[in-house]
Amino acid sequence: MRFHLIVMSSCVMLKLLEIKKSVFAKNDEIAASNRARLAAAGVKKTLNLTSSPGSGKTSLLVETLNRLKSEARFQIRAGVIEGDQHTANDAERIAATGAPALQINTLSACHLDASMIDRALGEFDLDRLDILFIENVGNLVCPAAYDLGESMKVVIMSVTEGEDKPLKYPRMFIEAGALVLTKIDLEEHLDFDSDLAVNNALKVNGALRVFRLSAKSGVGLDEWVDWIAST
Amino acid sequence: MRFHLIVMSSCVMLKLLEIKKSVFAKNDEIAASNRARLAAAGVKKTLNLTSSPGSGKTSLLVETLNRLKSEARFQIRAGVIEGDQHTANDAERIAATGAPALQINTLSACHLDASMIDRALGEFDLDRLDILFIENVGNLVCPAAYDLGESMKVVIMSVTEGEDKPLKYPRMFIEAGALVLTKIDLEEHLDFDSDLAVNNALKVNGALRVFRLSAKSGVGLDEWVDWIAST
Repeated sequence: MRFHLIVMSSCVMLKLLEIKKSVFAKNDEIAASNRARLAAAGVKKTLNLTSSPGSGKTSLLVETLNRLKSEARFQIRAGVIEGDQHTANDAERIAATGAPALQINTLSACHLDASMIDRALGEFDLDRLDILFIENVGNLVCPAAYDLGESMKVVIMSVTEGEDKPLKYPRMFIEAGALVLTKIDLEEHLDFDSDLAVNNALKVNGALRVFRLSAKSGVGLDEWVDWIAST
Repeated sequence: MRFHLIVMSSCVMLKLLEIKKSVFAKNDEIAASNRARLAAAGVKKTLNLTSSPGSGKTSLLVETLNRLKSEARFQIRAGVIEGDQHTANDAERIAATGAPALQINTLSACHLDASMIDRALGEFDLDRLDILFIENVGNLVCPAAYDLGESMKVVIMSVTEGEDKPLKYPRMFIEAGALVLTKIDLEEHLDFDSDLAVNNALKVNGALRVFRLSAKSGVGLDEWVDWIAST
């Protein structure tokens, strides 16, 4: 081995540990209240979508919403909360599908938290929603630590990222219930080994439900949309 | 407009503002000391490479190191500090080029900080280095806020990400002196408009030096390596 390995704790992390404990406790309390509120309103599923920037979360959501809307066998009304530090680009793309959409701009924060969702829920007519999607800020680290009141976190990873992302950012893959490997239409142009990526993810969390799909070509979308539509 | 926009501050961010001020002041002090130490040792350039996970930072570094080593016109000795939350995969890839490499595992922290670099510098024979590369943790948010003592931050973005990333994550693009658009060999298979992406970046920071390249095909690498080698 011609290299050294040092494991360090950030001085910020150490100093903030104490204050963070109370912040997380408060967040969990609000998340539990969000969860109860969604259940009471009859929202069957709330999916918290997380990934690095550029994995194709919004494109996947747009295709998913279009299918849920256009196929008669689905009787599903879906709404979307979009989280980004800046811009309302994603909510504009979602709104174009006809689904109710709300954009949260977090400014300097690298994740959504339960209090933001609490406020956002007030903007929806929840009685008229079957499914709520929350597209978190593009980040593989911070959103893993925050319960928003969702039924499940879904981690999204594109075939243009490295196969070792689940090993480098394990917490997100541990917290998630499903993994979506996106942009598989590009795999033929890449040195990416999607079996290796999936195996790395399953090493970290063997209970992950895995989907492989392309929002562009449509491959794999049926299985994904059927899973979402199933109660 | 069929969507709402809410701008929210994370409760965590507000509560932490006070404590963070002192953390950043301390970080800046250590960063200044790192900068002085690198200059005193004759290290001409220290580049802090930042990006989302999966942009191809490590592949670009490996190709860059191979070229610096193999081409006789460069008389440059380069070292690398690798930052990841977990694994030493990247340092192993770097060490295979023959360059001295050090892996820092940050565990829960989403960025390197100046104190980590301070400790890492002690592991290098700095008098024998002309250039130091620091590959930060894959994250477009947190690393923007931390001066490590580098000469310049370089933000790396692949053509598989959305063109609006500079607008969504402006701070990283504001802090950077150069932008590298990677994986341009894939552009023909994508709906990505690299001119739009570059224009968005220049809107945020008109002073960015822009490189477009593919570590895989080699396109654009000469210009990038020549720029690095120039003092």
